[in-house]
Amino acid sequence: MDQGKLFVFSGPSGTGKGTICRELLKEPGTWLSVSITTRAPRAGEEHGVHYYFVTREEYDRTVEEDGFLEHAEIYGNAYGTPKKYAMEHMAAGDDVILEIEMQGALQIKKAYPEAILIFVLPPSLKELRDRIRKRGTETEEQIATRMKTTLSEIELLPEYDYFLINDDLEEAIATARSIMKAEHCKTAGSAQTLIDRYKEEQ
Amino acid sequence: MDQGKLFVFSGPSGTGKGTICRELLKEPGTWLSVSITTRAPRAGEEHGVHYYFVTREEYDRTVEEDGFLEHAEIYGNAYGTPKKYAMEHMAAGDDVILEIEMQGALQIKKAYPEAILIFVLPPSLKELRDRIRKRGTETEEQIATRMKTTLSEIELLPEYDYFLINDDLEEAIATARSIMKAEHCKTAGSAQTLIDRYKEEQ
Repeated sequence: MDQGKLFVFSGPSGTGKGTICRELLKEPGTWLSVSITTRAPRAGEEHGVHYYFVTREEYDRTVEEDGFLEHAEIYGNAYGTPKKYAMEHMAAGDDVILEIEMQGALQIKKAYPEAILIFVLPPSLKELRDRIRKRGTETEEQIATRMKTTLSEIELLPEYDYFLINDDLEEAIATARSIMKAEHCKTAGSAQTLIDRYKEEQ
Repeated sequence: MDQGKLFVFSGPSGTGKGTICRELLKEPGTWLSVSITTRAPRAGEEHGVHYYFVTREEYDRTVEEDGFLEHAEIYGNAYGTPKKYAMEHMAAGDDVILEIEMQGALQIKKAYPEAILIFVLPPSLKELRDRIRKRGTETEEQIATRMKTTLSEIELLPEYDYFLINDDLEEAIATARSIMKAEHCKTAGSAQTLIDRYKEEQ
């Protein structure tokens, strides 16, 4: 059986990467990486579904054991992507999907260069602005700040392997699936296994 | 408009790459590269469809002008893949499909490193052998020789970007389309254009 791959979806907020990832999970043989956190569960949050809730001691031990693909402290709480589960699922042939903010994605690429980084983009800044305005949760000033952040995030594009413009959701999902399929057809890393397979037949 | 890309399909004979390429051409914005040859047209062969039939002088001039992506002499006739038409179609946004034997494919990669090389594989040597036997056009000895050639050709896999196992034809076509789609989402070569596009909006 072929080894699974790690697909990291990232990009500015509001681009719909969460929705895309949830759809991708409907494909059999696809598994969503769940983060570890030291913060307390909120109402409705389930251990192993939304997060793995761990103690600070467990978290620190995992850091020491180099057990994270990436980790960060945010407002006094620690978060991390555990290596173990992702590796186990990939070894079992599952593709692992990970949705994460941009700095985390770049950390993962350093820790695990085989990771495939996909940058989810809005069709345009105007479109993104309109989407956020429609939600009505942010002031014009907040929106302007966010647009600046988005633009500076987009400058990180060259660090990613693929871009995915989320204009039409169905199309973006199909394109994400194409990327995943194509990655499984790359000779890099699997050419020798294939050659051996045909040779053994002789 | 995005620039088109050059997709080179190659692999051992009998793997069905011709059928796959013909199906891919049904997609709008896809163009098949037609070779140049100095040999005379055979019955039913059309200029510009099966080959561009040229004189030896025209061929030699094209060689001198570095006008081929690859070229070779076979049994006293010269063949070549003209650069000009492929480049024109790519500039116009078309993907260019090229079906070619393996040495030609590797020549193209040298002349035009942006070319995407796809190696079409049989599901197994046994399966390939059965297909050829069914045709009934070759002796057992010829088949055995051909299997040896196939195996030595498969050893060239690491030179290619992708492999495509033609087990189920429909699936192979869908996978080829996925590869083409994914290649258009690579940040390599297009990240700066994208960044500029978002920046201009500001």
